[in-house]
Amino acid sequence: MSKFGGIEAGGTKFVCAVGSGPGDLDSVEIPTTGPEETIGRVLDFFGRHGRVEVVGIGSFGPIDPVPESATFGYITSTPKLAWRNFDLAGAIREGLRVKVAFDTDVNAAALGEFRWGAAQGLHTFLYLTVGTGVGGGGMVNGGLLHGHRHPEMGHMRVPHDRERDPFPGNCPYHGDCLEGLAAAPAMEARWGRLPHELPADHPAWELEAHYLALGIANLTLALSPQRVVVGGGILRHEQLYPMVRAKVATLLNGYVATPEIVPPGLGGRAGVLGAIALGQAIL
Amino acid sequence: MSKFGGIEAGGTKFVCAVGSGPGDLDSVEIPTTGPEETIGRVLDFFGRHGRVEVVGIGSFGPIDPVPESATFGYITSTPKLAWRNFDLAGAIREGLRVKVAFDTDVNAAALGEFRWGAAQGLHTFLYLTVGTGVGGGGMVNGGLLHGHRHPEMGHMRVPHDRERDPFPGNCPYHGDCLEGLAAAPAMEARWGRLPHELPADHPAWELEAHYLALGIANLTLALSPQRVVVGGGILRHEQLYPMVRAKVATLLNGYVATPEIVPPGLGGRAGVLGAIALGQAIL
Repeated sequence: MSKFGGIEAGGTKFVCAVGSGPGDLDSVEIPTTGPEETIGRVLDFFGRHGRVEVVGIGSFGPIDPVPESATFGYITSTPKLAWRNFDLAGAIREGLRVKVAFDTDVNAAALGEFRWGAAQGLHTFLYLTVGTGVGGGGMVNGGLLHGHRHPEMGHMRVPHDRERDPFPGNCPYHGDCLEGLAAAPAMEARWGRLPHELPADHPAWELEAHYLALGIANLTLALSPQRVVVGGGILRHEQLYPMVRAKVATLLNGYVATPEIVPPGLGGRAGVLGAIALGQAIL
Repeated sequence: MSKFGGIEAGGTKFVCAVGSGPGDLDSVEIPTTGPEETIGRVLDFFGRHGRVEVVGIGSFGPIDPVPESATFGYITSTPKLAWRNFDLAGAIREGLRVKVAFDTDVNAAALGEFRWGAAQGLHTFLYLTVGTGVGGGGMVNGGLLHGHRHPEMGHMRVPHDRERDPFPGNCPYHGDCLEGLAAAPAMEARWGRLPHELPADHPAWELEAHYLALGIANLTLALSPQRVVVGGGILRHEQLYPMVRAKVATLLNGYVATPEIVPPGLGGRAGVLGAIALGQAIL
């Protein structure tokens, strides 16, 4: 039986796995340090698991996922300087002498949810993650969303009422884009505490739900998804789901239908399972 | 040789045509009044042109473009009460006894631009129109963008600085969504003059370019289009194009590439030619 490898390459950790789906996954987490050390530990992991036929990689970005491009497989304009213009797919391909599939972390997670999770049977849906950043991927007409390169949904501008929320936003590129207002570092900077230290009735959650609803409403109007799967560390605060659903409905105001807004069926494993599925798709 | 019919069903006029492409189009404009009178005149036009095999319809909306749906072919929640829940595709199908293809006006225009205009050879692009409303359609991975029903890109929320622009917005559903701030009726309400009465150096155009750039930047981040084709009556004020391009680049700030922003290659005929192409696609 074929063995498949998957890598969820994140800004804080790499999750590596060997297996064929949710039932037989053997995985490890490696903290993200510099490329050389991190890739060395990734290669060690796969070296210990015998030969895999293909490795799928879902990577933090921005990346170049266009196979025809000269920089296919690279992490490109990331603010993480050590990883900028790093040939991640090439390092895995050459280090393990395998075929490599390469996409964004969020498209990988979307594919994982499509195969085994909360997006089965759909043709057009979004997968959003809200944690150290805000990212989005998904499918349109049954194909993963790429376009020119790939979406960067977290960097959309949304209304920001500075009387209600004087925090100026902390995205180094855009200031008060959605990520600059609603990712975990923004919550920490605004309230002076880590998100998990904020009690469930703290006004932080109402404001967080407000920004996430603005983002989801805009994406609903842009893409008409059948469903929106939302995960990431911030959404472990499950009180957000009903608040976000109600606010999206209010914002759309009946003009278009409110999509279902649900947690990932695969929980925190959507990314690495999706990476496995990315690899399976090119065999 | 086959003859094809096309209808661009707009809120102010219906453009009807018979032909097979830009070189042989025979068209007429019919003002949009009530459904009975308007459809009667549409049927008269096609009656005078002999038998067509298929009629493609690109309609104002919201509509139901899902063939499996019980209300396929209907105009649904439009604020135009006489047209609400009107079976437009059915009226044409039964009135002319032809096959009918049905989509949004903006998806039809996108298809027209893909076949004969400014989007040839692309797989992922947007077509936006800015006139009495703001609408958007396009293709992703080579297929027209539908999703659950269809996008309503003009109704996205964008930042609205009420100190700079105290106009509250005039969308009956959302107040200061993009359409409520940037469509022609918003310009008229804000400045007390029709857009074509505003001189090219009036500050109205700078503000208009600002809102359009916010919308296009957000859509670029949501969908990563290779190109954005922007038409409609407001864009006849061609000074907007360079202003919008510069502002989109400033907003994206190098994080992702700025897409090309261009006028429709087919000018005002994109919609009706796209309707012809919609019909050709189902034969």
